[in-house]
Amino acid sequence: MRFGIVFSVMGLLLRFLGPMMLVPLGVALYYGESPFPFAVAFSVTTIVGSALSFRYSSDDREWEKREGFAIVAFGWFAAALFGSIPYMFDGVTPLNALFESMSGFTTTGATVFVDIETHSKSLLFWRSMTQWLGGMGIIMLFIAILPKLGVAGRQMFRAEAPGPKEDQLRPRIQETAKILWTVYVSISVVELLLLLSAGMSFYDACTHTFTTMACGGFSPYADSVAAFDSPLIEGIITLFMFIAGANFALHYKTLYSDKKSLLKDNEFKFYFLIVGLATILLTLVLWRDTPDSIPTSFRYAIFQVISILTTTGYATTDFNLWTDSGKVVLLAMMFIGGCAGSTAGGIKVVRLLILLKYARNELFKAIHPKAVRPIKFNGKSVPNDIMHAIISFVVIYFLIFLISSAVLSIFGMDLTSSVTASIATLGNIGPGFNVVGPMANFSTVPAIGKIVLIANMWIGRLEVFTVIVMLTPEFWKR
Amino acid sequence: MRFGIVFSVMGLLLRFLGPMMLVPLGVALYYGESPFPFAVAFSVTTIVGSALSFRYSSDDREWEKREGFAIVAFGWFAAALFGSIPYMFDGVTPLNALFESMSGFTTTGATVFVDIETHSKSLLFWRSMTQWLGGMGIIMLFIAILPKLGVAGRQMFRAEAPGPKEDQLRPRIQETAKILWTVYVSISVVELLLLLSAGMSFYDACTHTFTTMACGGFSPYADSVAAFDSPLIEGIITLFMFIAGANFALHYKTLYSDKKSLLKDNEFKFYFLIVGLATILLTLVLWRDTPDSIPTSFRYAIFQVISILTTTGYATTDFNLWTDSGKVVLLAMMFIGGCAGSTAGGIKVVRLLILLKYARNELFKAIHPKAVRPIKFNGKSVPNDIMHAIISFVVIYFLIFLISSAVLSIFGMDLTSSVTASIATLGNIGPGFNVVGPMANFSTVPAIGKIVLIANMWIGRLEVFTVIVMLTPEFWKR
Ligand SMILES: [K+]
Ligand SMILES: [K+]
Repeated sequence: MRFGIVFSVMGLLLRFLGPMMLVPLGVALYYGESPFPFAVAFSVTTIVGSALSFRYSSDDREWEKREGFAIVAFGWFAAALFGSIPYMFDGVTPLNALFESMSGFTTTGATVFVDIETHSKSLLFWRSMTQWLGGMGIIMLFIAILPKLGVAGRQMFRAEAPGPKEDQLRPRIQETAKILWTVYVSISVVELLLLLSAGMSFYDACTHTFTTMACGGFSPYADSVAAFDSPLIEGIITLFMFIAGANFALHYKTLYSDKKSLLKDNEFKFYFLIVGLATILLTLVLWRDTPDSIPTSFRYAIFQVISILTTTGYATTDFNLWTDSGKVVLLAMMFIGGCAGSTAGGIKVVRLLILLKYARNELFKAIHPKAVRPIKFNGKSVPNDIMHAIISFVVIYFLIFLISSAVLSIFGMDLTSSVTASIATLGNIGPGFNVVGPMANFSTVPAIGKIVLIANMWIGRLEVFTVIVMLTPEFWKR
Repeated sequence: MRFGIVFSVMGLLLRFLGPMMLVPLGVALYYGESPFPFAVAFSVTTIVGSALSFRYSSDDREWEKREGFAIVAFGWFAAALFGSIPYMFDGVTPLNALFESMSGFTTTGATVFVDIETHSKSLLFWRSMTQWLGGMGIIMLFIAILPKLGVAGRQMFRAEAPGPKEDQLRPRIQETAKILWTVYVSISVVELLLLLSAGMSFYDACTHTFTTMACGGFSPYADSVAAFDSPLIEGIITLFMFIAGANFALHYKTLYSDKKSLLKDNEFKFYFLIVGLATILLTLVLWRDTPDSIPTSFRYAIFQVISILTTTGYATTDFNLWTDSGKVVLLAMMFIGGCAGSTAGGIKVVRLLILLKYARNELFKAIHPKAVRPIKFNGKSVPNDIMHAIISFVVIYFLIFLISSAVLSIFGMDLTSSVTASIATLGNIGPGFNVVGPMANFSTVPAIGKIVLIANMWIGRLEVFTVIVMLTPEFWKR
């Protein structure tokens, strides 16, 4: 491990993050709140970033895989750490500030705020904005960086990406980033305008656009999107959660070259199918189990299915009060997640789809052991190493989920809360059930539990491998 | 699919099962109960078996894989079906009778009996005895039949088995069966004698030996093993559950050739480690969360850990009343199960161990993509096809578990009960939590749920593939 390279890139990252803090500083000035927290955070972040850049030369930029992992993992952690500074000026303890900040940059949306509305508007703006920045980072990570690191099946759709080919990453990486960010920013602007025209204030429209596009789910209101009680606003947010949960490389292609790119994609089709079936099922269950009519049940069902499947985590109703029949539909969504190349977290639709095809294939092979039948995705055979990457991802994902659930339980949380808090953080969803339900918060989790959940968010957002390789001695060898 | 072969072997099976029913008939006569139910069951089973044998010649005995699967799956189902006849004479509905009988032959131990002690002693004897027969079947299946069918990693320890080599199954299959059954019967006799000398009645000693050795868990008492409240009896049963949950081929080797066979085996070592760690953890949790002392906590912990890990399902305390911290330890055990080649169900220790090694290997490969590092088990590399068989097993296992949990939830069961009822039947454990807890029963499950759970027991006991291949069109092709 050559730490020089890692620190050099982290310096770059912090020098980018620092100036971003001037935005909430402006918001603070506008609302007559103290700009001091953001001034401090801006200064500290920029100074540390510059110091790192000054101390570590960026001459030697040929990353090995290990350095790549370290940059991604430590980079995200550093963003969360420096991004937590403003919280601490608002009476938030350091652990809670780190939790909230990690929840922001990982686009998780789990909150330790007990009474959200008591915090300053500028802080809540920053909190939403960290998710938007995190979403930007994750698109970049997924489409430009991880394929280079060979992590967990991202190669699957590298061919789809407008950007880097294996042999020409360096010159193209900035170009790819620009293209994808243009798409991300453009769709964000469209959502912002639609929310404004639906009657939202500029502040609300900004914060909700930030957290929709990032599949983040933070809201400046304790009641989340239910605070507006507007079918129109819910409709707009539902549509943009669905878009944000799909592959941004495909959005680019759809917009600029082939209009049918999304419809041709196996993952998108399966994503659409899951949304459809789950919505129908949940509508029927809510209609049966609550006094609501079919249209009202449908309104809650489609919003909640898409919110949880895309790992956004907004709520228009306290689904913790539903019967277990309704909850189980959402629970299933929690274990799926959005599409690869989106801002959504979770296991991802493509992995589930390929695992199902794999299992189907093995059943066939049980009867015809000598027959050769490759697993196809988007018309191409899935190579063996990608198959292995997907499988080991799922194995390690579940292992972390189980260990995390067990630790939380052992330290006194009830089972449902432990299990859903674990998957809600590992899948970057946000709310779970019971004490971590959508109208509740994570403030009652014991300190050790919060540390576990912070780790979950970090591990889950970075596609598991990027962080978990640190547990191997090979990672640390010189 | 050539059904002639299938029916021919099923005829053989029923002609073996019929006379077994004369044993509970004898018990009925001894206790002055009506022998009529068993006389009818014996007659029907024997007549149907003979008719099948008469109608379908056994000349053409060269099974293809498909016929092998069909024989195992339908054979077990037929045993459960004909074995359910005596229950129906005791006022049990046909669905409940099939549930109880399937629970017996699959050594699950889940019961729909509301008030166990109201049933006749002969019926409860038969109920326990079906588990012992099921255990006998499962050892045979695992060590002699499944390797031939190439199912799910059983090849792993074929080398260990005293019996069949790939090219000489036919002549050796009977020999292998004899050897293993001798071991099974011998260990059973030792347990019987120990239980008698610990003060149990002959009836109790028989029924509990039957259900210990099969990792079955049926007890003629509603309070299960807690009914005796004897540390000595618990100790004996704990020891024999532990033995029954280990590989019988290794028991054979340990007894007749190499005394250290068990201690050299990677799976057994890991099994021992899991028991040790889980017992320590659970002891500490019980000591913290209940008024019990450390020794009492240990007594409950070791019994319950081994009972659930080996998928026996006996209870010496109502663990449904424990805090969630204690329950989560047992829940983890439910997802592991015993060793391959034992009478235990579940995913099995060997699969977990190899999956963990696999994940560890993939982490290594993430850093050194070109390095070749095979996965070792008992000193040998695990071949690719076995790796695939293990992975697809676990994928399909979890899929069935999730679908089953969802169906039960949708039909109105609470989430904890749905989830634990699913794993308790799929893993052939028996009791779960809440409404299906150890001191409760499955009588309140709605009919559709019972059908799902019957399927779970059947699928889980036959190592998933054997039953699930039936869902593929290839299975049914001529
Ligand atoms: K989220
Ligand atoms: K059992």
